[in-house]
Amino acid sequence: MFLILVYDVGEKRVGKVLKICRKYLNWVQNSVLEGEITEAALRRLKLELKRAIDEKEDSVIFYILRTTKYSEREILGVKKGGDEVII
Amino acid sequence: MFLILVYDVGEKRVGKVLKICRKYLNWVQNSVLEGEITEAALRRLKLELKRAIDEKEDSVIFYILRTTKYSEREILGVKKGGDEVII
Repeated sequence: MFLILVYDVGEKRVGKVLKICRKYLNWVQNSVLEGEITEAALRRLKLELKRAIDEKEDSVIFYILRTTKYSEREILGVKKGGDEVII
Repeated sequence: MFLILVYDVGEKRVGKVLKICRKYLNWVQNSVLEGEITEAALRRLKLELKRAIDEKEDSVIFYILRTTKYSEREILGVKKGGDEVII
């Protein structure tokens, strides 16, 4: 499945959250990562993030796409992330 | 169709970009908006954003989902946006 992850976390935790996310996903843009991921890897990612964030202050959203057949991605302006993107 | 929009724009343009996006979509989190949108409205949104951003510096990504049948959305931590969210 394809995952789009966006996060809005406190300054002190941004570095740690980004480091965790980059183990699983491709950095696309400021506080946005995406990529193919398995159910098991998604579970591990969530667990690691749960420990890293302050659940009363921070917010992480997972957009899970079971298939990318019905979705597309367009960019306006500069492309900031790498080329590993699939949809 | 459902749209997830993420933007990474220069400080001077953030206010204007957010104002434009909020006419069409629901604010979900820092630099992330989403919502149902028609083809015509998406064209207008892109045109307005094209005029507002610096295409050499800024980046706006449109994730267009033709259907939300194969996607889901999960949140870890606080829910920052409103309740108009559909998927």
